[in-house]
Amino acid sequence: MNIVLMEPEIPYNTGNIGRSCVLTNTSLHLIKPFGFSLDEKQIKRAGLDYWQHIDLHEWDSLDELMAAHPESKFYFATTKTTQRYSDVTYKENDFIVFGPESRGVPVEILEKNQETCITIPMIKMGRSLNLSNSAAIVLYESLRQNDFNFGE
Amino acid sequence: MNIVLMEPEIPYNTGNIGRSCVLTNTSLHLIKPFGFSLDEKQIKRAGLDYWQHIDLHEWDSLDELMAAHPESKFYFATTKTTQRYSDVTYKENDFIVFGPESRGVPVEILEKNQETCITIPMIKMGRSLNLSNSAAIVLYESLRQNDFNFGE
Repeated sequence: MNIVLMEPEIPYNTGNIGRSCVLTNTSLHLIKPFGFSLDEKQIKRAGLDYWQHIDLHEWDSLDELMAAHPESKFYFATTKTTQRYSDVTYKENDFIVFGPESRGVPVEILEKNQETCITIPMIKMGRSLNLSNSAAIVLYESLRQNDFNFGE
Repeated sequence: MNIVLMEPEIPYNTGNIGRSCVLTNTSLHLIKPFGFSLDEKQIKRAGLDYWQHIDLHEWDSLDELMAAHPESKFYFATTKTTQRYSDVTYKENDFIVFGPESRGVPVEILEKNQETCITIPMIKMGRSLNLSNSAAIVLYESLRQNDFNFGE
């Protein structure tokens, strides 16, 4: 699988998501700019000794990433859709995109990709789950659907 | 659902798990001792404005909690079993137990509860996912199985 973080702001979240990626042979794609330096201590602390093993890709924009993978399916996690993350069928090399912690995926991108917008159900409180938890939930649903085939 | 954290050590994890619990009408049970104070700043920061809404229960021991819920099913998350978390059938009021970050659920408890030990599949690296991510993954699988009925 592929996890994409757009302009991530909190290094602890990116570190934890990197840890989940390493442990599942998932590639992590980061779209610039980041709200932290990639060698910042906090990333290493959150990612522990995993960070060195990560399959990490940095991109200048989401367009650049999508243009480099024209055959791939991109899902967009958002609170602004009714399609549940568990109601779509993931293939092993799909991309799952998460927006920045404070703002989410921009509306104009959601509008262009309505059929692949997905949401994690929760009570109506107008807020959202922690980013690294959201990424873990959707990543593991995609892995569950593919029988946890990590390609080892 | 019910999430149980045995002797949690890292306030940021407990805060994030609390946030997931609030957003899913899940009760959070903490088994003493904790590696932090419950009014510590970090909990509030990680839990944001959610912490005040949490259905929180503190227990002196796991035995005390289990004795208070004799009819309930308790699942134990561990790397030391082969039964996948997604291969069991959760009911809405089951309990899912996680051990402390550094040690996991004690072996003697796992041995007494072999049929309800569950694991999150990952590559063979001898390490584990972040605690709050693990809790989110299992909690959301149990919610998915129960059609995200939050009892609202």
